[in-house]
Amino acid sequence: MPSAHPVFGDTPAIGLICRNCQATYDLIAQHACWECFGPLEVNYDAAALARVTREQIESGPQNLWRYAGLLPVGQNESDRLSLNPGLTPLVEADNLARELGMRKVWIKDDSANPTHSFKDRVVSVAASAAGKLGFDRLACASTGNLANSVAAHAARAGYESIVFIPYDLETGKVVTTAVYGGGLVAVNGSYDDVNRLCSQLTETDEFEKTAFVNVNIRPYYAEGSKTLGYEVAEQLGWRLPEQVVIPAASGELLTKVHKAFEECAEIGLTDQAKVRVFGAQSAGCSPIADAFDADTDVITPVKPTGIAKSLNIGDPAAGPYAIESVRATGGAFAKVDDDEIREGIRLLARTTGIFAETAGGVSVATLKKLLDEGRLDPDAETVVYNTGEGLKTLDAVAAQAGPTHTVDASLKSAKQAGLLD
Amino acid sequence: MPSAHPVFGDTPAIGLICRNCQATYDLIAQHACWECFGPLEVNYDAAALARVTREQIESGPQNLWRYAGLLPVGQNESDRLSLNPGLTPLVEADNLARELGMRKVWIKDDSANPTHSFKDRVVSVAASAAGKLGFDRLACASTGNLANSVAAHAARAGYESIVFIPYDLETGKVVTTAVYGGGLVAVNGSYDDVNRLCSQLTETDEFEKTAFVNVNIRPYYAEGSKTLGYEVAEQLGWRLPEQVVIPAASGELLTKVHKAFEECAEIGLTDQAKVRVFGAQSAGCSPIADAFDADTDVITPVKPTGIAKSLNIGDPAAGPYAIESVRATGGAFAKVDDDEIREGIRLLARTTGIFAETAGGVSVATLKKLLDEGRLDPDAETVVYNTGEGLKTLDAVAAQAGPTHTVDASLKSAKQAGLLD
Repeated sequence: MPSAHPVFGDTPAIGLICRNCQATYDLIAQHACWECFGPLEVNYDAAALARVTREQIESGPQNLWRYAGLLPVGQNESDRLSLNPGLTPLVEADNLARELGMRKVWIKDDSANPTHSFKDRVVSVAASAAGKLGFDRLACASTGNLANSVAAHAARAGYESIVFIPYDLETGKVVTTAVYGGGLVAVNGSYDDVNRLCSQLTETDEFEKTAFVNVNIRPYYAEGSKTLGYEVAEQLGWRLPEQVVIPAASGELLTKVHKAFEECAEIGLTDQAKVRVFGAQSAGCSPIADAFDADTDVITPVKPTGIAKSLNIGDPAAGPYAIESVRATGGAFAKVDDDEIREGIRLLARTTGIFAETAGGVSVATLKKLLDEGRLDPDAETVVYNTGEGLKTLDAVAAQAGPTHTVDASLKSAKQAGLLD
Repeated sequence: MPSAHPVFGDTPAIGLICRNCQATYDLIAQHACWECFGPLEVNYDAAALARVTREQIESGPQNLWRYAGLLPVGQNESDRLSLNPGLTPLVEADNLARELGMRKVWIKDDSANPTHSFKDRVVSVAASAAGKLGFDRLACASTGNLANSVAAHAARAGYESIVFIPYDLETGKVVTTAVYGGGLVAVNGSYDDVNRLCSQLTETDEFEKTAFVNVNIRPYYAEGSKTLGYEVAEQLGWRLPEQVVIPAASGELLTKVHKAFEECAEIGLTDQAKVRVFGAQSAGCSPIADAFDADTDVITPVKPTGIAKSLNIGDPAAGPYAIESVRATGGAFAKVDDDEIREGIRLLARTTGIFAETAGGVSVATLKKLLDEGRLDPDAETVVYNTGEGLKTLDAVAAQAGPTHTVDASLKSAKQAGLLD
């Protein structure tokens, strides 16, 4: 058994590794390879991962830290700078399945996290790593949900925060970030511009002690998404689904959920099973889906448009890896337009009681499209990921979601309005 | 052991009982006593309640149904028409305690429920009772949160729904109800007018099969609030807090949480302990606090104003019982104005990472006021209830919660804005 890491303690992680050239690094604050500029990810001791058992996990806390044995940080409770997200509901969507002519559909509803998106998972892991690495301020480039989560995590931990967002975000996401009292910088530009500015800031002396969760400590951050795979496996009774539909912005979530499924099988938490991974994008920003359709893994950056702002990353860092996951598993990508997204939100709400943000609408609309096109098997057990909360993107459906009747407070008026017919 | 109830099965409930004259009824759809018009509540077999153990509860599901042995319905999983709310976080609010000069403060954060308010608890119990009682449509009179919850529960269960709201609700609450596709009736009037109309509708033939969760089946509905007491006891390691601060609209939540604490001690889940119960109201609608201050239990109805719309019930049905609970435990009521409410929301967000709706702002501002006035003990362990989600009342804080900086996507602009100072 290797001795504990001097900074991270009893972690199963042994360092960072370049996804491109396999160069290895210690557990440091770095996201790009010094050799080839490829993206770094966390490298684990396979034997340490293999020691994790179902029983260990099941006796853990009712949140994502039950999987700490499979994460780079958070093995000790005192190391966790966290709102303790996770163990969100896996909802049996029988009404939805019936309406779509499918055998079995589940919704993994990550709007149930503390700040109501899956970003609480990645921020919890990143913030905890930031604490270990000696940072004293949390930051991010964000399309909104990440901003909410970073500001809230910093408030809970008593850290300073400064988050960077495109100037044109939904009000719901701006207010829900600003209310925590940290710095909130609106940038005149797209998310990709915001991201570039943050990369530049990490190089300045003034930001030396600032952890940009999705920039300089991105390798740790990205690992948090794996818990969305582990949880589905555990909630299905340590069994993998046959198909999953996952929305893609940077492509990282999809890649990491796929990685989590592979790990589950490798270390014996589940049987080996083939999970077909499908990716969902908005037609207003579909560089990954377009590359998939063109049968290439070279992503051509785009200028995003459309209502699914949380997915509007025109130059997706993990795009090629997402395509790799989808191809390797026999899945596909599809894209849906704004009207289809709105209809996806309403379909999900009407059949399950779950009100998703636009990204969740993209997932559901993509499920429908893939079915219509015969690319997804209606008889295979399917999990659809809802990554965020409808309350944050009210404008998307507000025009079609008002009162059905307006009456005075009298039986006579109720009768006139047809309520007593 | 009594035989199972013909409709409700293995319930610990033996009927309804009038809170006023103690007349008893079977488990029927009725909320007012035929003898004296007093409010009915569920009457339990004390021996059945006493058989519930910590171990039974702890081996139950991770939601409010773990307390089914203490509820009138839901003992069998197939009886539950439910989004499965509950087991929401009890958050250690150390930064808040420090700022207020208190020894120990916890926030019971019920914004974590599926539709992000405590109403999911009462609706889950009411909807399940409605199923047993043969209703085929769910309805309510609502200030917003209840509407959201009823519409979502109906969507999940495949029931029809029709909800009644005052015409001037927050957009967040209107859209989040309408999106589920049920009937949504805006009433030109106050909540109290809406409530009166719903009472009249329950008497019509057309609404014979409609369960108004907070009108004709209110006794079942109200019991759901008890779970907010049980959970705090369990989450503290089967121990009661010394003080609690609970917002009051109808006054029912406060009354039922107090009842739950008493039950915990009576049936041996916790030691006997005195919990001082404090009630929080908005100055725009404070009929209960005003009666308390005037040392009477006669509530004078008011016309509500102010931003805490979810608490705006001018003629609170359980007001006298709430005053009774507060007096019996040595607590107090206080009321806070709109500016204090906004400051309460921001204080909670800044110190805990929890973004509460206006009702939660009322709780936190009331905590501060009671401390300032020396009526609440800063050294006693205190639980403050947050009953809803800030995303639903964004307007309350939007004016003070925007970006702190606006920049172009360049280091030069960041420097000019002072970000590199």
